[in-house]
Amino acid sequence: MSAMDKILCINETDGDLSCQSGARWEQINDTLRDKDIPLFFPLDPGPGATIGGMIGTGCSGTNAVRYGTARAEWFLNITVVLPSGEVIKTRSRARKSAAGFDTTKLFIGAEGTLGIVTEATLRLAPVIPTKVAIAQFPDVEHAVSAVQEILNSPYGPHLQCVELLDDQMMSAINKAGVVDHPYPVKDTLFFKIQGAPEAIKLTSDVVKEITNKHGSDRFEFAADEEAADLWQNRKYALTSSIALVPDARCWTTDVCVPTSRLPQLVYETKQDMAKSGIRSTIVGHVGDGNFHALMLFTNDEELRIVNEAVHRLVHRAIALEGTCTGEHGVGVGKREYLRDELGEGTVELMRTVKRAIDPLNLFNPGKLYPEPSMPSGATSKRTETHKDVRI
Amino acid sequence: MSAMDKILCINETDGDLSCQSGARWEQINDTLRDKDIPLFFPLDPGPGATIGGMIGTGCSGTNAVRYGTARAEWFLNITVVLPSGEVIKTRSRARKSAAGFDTTKLFIGAEGTLGIVTEATLRLAPVIPTKVAIAQFPDVEHAVSAVQEILNSPYGPHLQCVELLDDQMMSAINKAGVVDHPYPVKDTLFFKIQGAPEAIKLTSDVVKEITNKHGSDRFEFAADEEAADLWQNRKYALTSSIALVPDARCWTTDVCVPTSRLPQLVYETKQDMAKSGIRSTIVGHVGDGNFHALMLFTNDEELRIVNEAVHRLVHRAIALEGTCTGEHGVGVGKREYLRDELGEGTVELMRTVKRAIDPLNLFNPGKLYPEPSMPSGATSKRTETHKDVRI
Repeated sequence: MSAMDKILCINETDGDLSCQSGARWEQINDTLRDKDIPLFFPLDPGPGATIGGMIGTGCSGTNAVRYGTARAEWFLNITVVLPSGEVIKTRSRARKSAAGFDTTKLFIGAEGTLGIVTEATLRLAPVIPTKVAIAQFPDVEHAVSAVQEILNSPYGPHLQCVELLDDQMMSAINKAGVVDHPYPVKDTLFFKIQGAPEAIKLTSDVVKEITNKHGSDRFEFAADEEAADLWQNRKYALTSSIALVPDARCWTTDVCVPTSRLPQLVYETKQDMAKSGIRSTIVGHVGDGNFHALMLFTNDEELRIVNEAVHRLVHRAIALEGTCTGEHGVGVGKREYLRDELGEGTVELMRTVKRAIDPLNLFNPGKLYPEPSMPSGATSKRTETHKDVRI
Repeated sequence: MSAMDKILCINETDGDLSCQSGARWEQINDTLRDKDIPLFFPLDPGPGATIGGMIGTGCSGTNAVRYGTARAEWFLNITVVLPSGEVIKTRSRARKSAAGFDTTKLFIGAEGTLGIVTEATLRLAPVIPTKVAIAQFPDVEHAVSAVQEILNSPYGPHLQCVELLDDQMMSAINKAGVVDHPYPVKDTLFFKIQGAPEAIKLTSDVVKEITNKHGSDRFEFAADEEAADLWQNRKYALTSSIALVPDARCWTTDVCVPTSRLPQLVYETKQDMAKSGIRSTIVGHVGDGNFHALMLFTNDEELRIVNEAVHRLVHRAIALEGTCTGEHGVGVGKREYLRDELGEGTVELMRTVKRAIDPLNLFNPGKLYPEPSMPSGATSKRTETHKDVRI
């Protein structure tokens, strides 16, 4: 659908915008900026993502700590072609409705298996000035406990983003050369603090106090230009990471757990990867308990080792009351984990809905739903697949 | 389910809480307060609502302008008994997940037609101090334009609530005697501004400036005790309104439109009611474009007139790109409007899901879904029903 990328209508007063599903989120925000409309669409997954893809995966991004995910209320309505050929529009343009269950939500995260999204009406948010600040910690546990205290304080809602970059990722950023002086290679938090200038000052005083209390020896604002570069580099974590090892390819994966479980998950995962000899960076939307591991490999043997490590990571997350994927989706590679995570009854409910809407299994067959015959991830023999490999 | 009202588990660090579906939102927030846990559950529909009922209707409330509705991400997971007898849990306890479409959302707004919710895990938000301010306007249009400018400013996210109370509702509040000095009987906004004290000061300066610009001749903070009373009285709008007319009963209804359409909707509705001789108050979650009309009647003839006026109100809302119900749900009384609002294809998709999950039509039959034989609201002869009458 990527060629259907038109913006159809902008309602500035109501704070909404209609577009075709091939439009990209950066294109939408660039258009609003060019037209001097002080609104933006806050879902910010990886660069280049289209609205249709964002609906299909139920995406989120760095802004999720403040604005939630695609599963919240950012899609007021969508136009969908059903497998029957019928074209429907899920809802009106009102900001909220109690007129039955919201069929929009059926298609968010369905990975194209229930319908083809052609148009969407997006809710927009006011642009708010931001400043980027950085704090460095002795370890992930200290960083996460600082984030929890900040988010539960009255200043929590002023944090637009809280990103964890582990020591390896900081090393990658230093090597990418976007900062004048390299940062100490330590577990680091990037904050994006939002508000009018006075409000940012108040919030950053509190953030500094709390990060110090939790063992940070460094809290500083980035200069505006450096902040843009740093954030850009965070968004392009994949390319920065790949540059760490010559001729490397990268397996990216993500999981999400209750935030209190994140330190244990990151600690055990880093130990596991060190033991397996895998070079990897970790970036995390730490306010949500979501993290991405970017694991590098250069040959088939390393790929096999990475594959096994991903399997252990997913099981670790599920055992900690988490999910096999926070943002990336299921696709082919994570189908086997759905029963472990959700239970057979919930998976069968998903299949029931799929069969009712697409009885001939026309739309994206083989994706998302585990076959009833498929062994669950806990017991299956590892098979090597490149499907989850993103370069 | 109202007797299954236990709170099962509070995870303060993760900001979540598990309870049975009969627990009430005030009970949950009272419990958190009694335990000195600085978190709360921000969905605040009418007094006494249970978690199960809030899921069933996809509720919202006065806090929706800041926190969204039940359809956002406040329910991390729910436990549901399906019509097959199978008991499922929809998701893990992670704050977000991309593991397929979110089956939780199927049950939000389904009015008990797809399953019986027995437990839920709620996401909580930090308690933030608030102050209540009041501004009065020459008419609804001025009030709404002020709200739009405030919400689209960098200070917008500091508004926890923005409630419109029309002149009739202010009259009811004066008569209820909760304020020392009666307020001028004018269209009025109640603001709940949140933040630390310095942040509230910054926000209220901006709110005052913008409301003055839009014709408000009065902006003042309520004293803390009066603020609690005023807000309580807003929450108990129904009882205050009923007290306006001796021996009255009240038909409450709600609709929601894009906010830019709200002034036209309120203006035409007030004219219509004046012409029909209906005594009514209007309260609105104006930040969302949602409003409630509370129409009083004392006998069958007045009930008939009110019934006709509700019908015209719903059609007015749908014609303005809105919905037949913003918060209250469909039930029996609004089934006839669903096709006008959503189109036959979307309604048939809802029926398809219902048939697949509940093939024997065991769960809440006769609710929500319009029968295929039912004439649409636009053409149907009005029938008098007491089903939507709440006393």
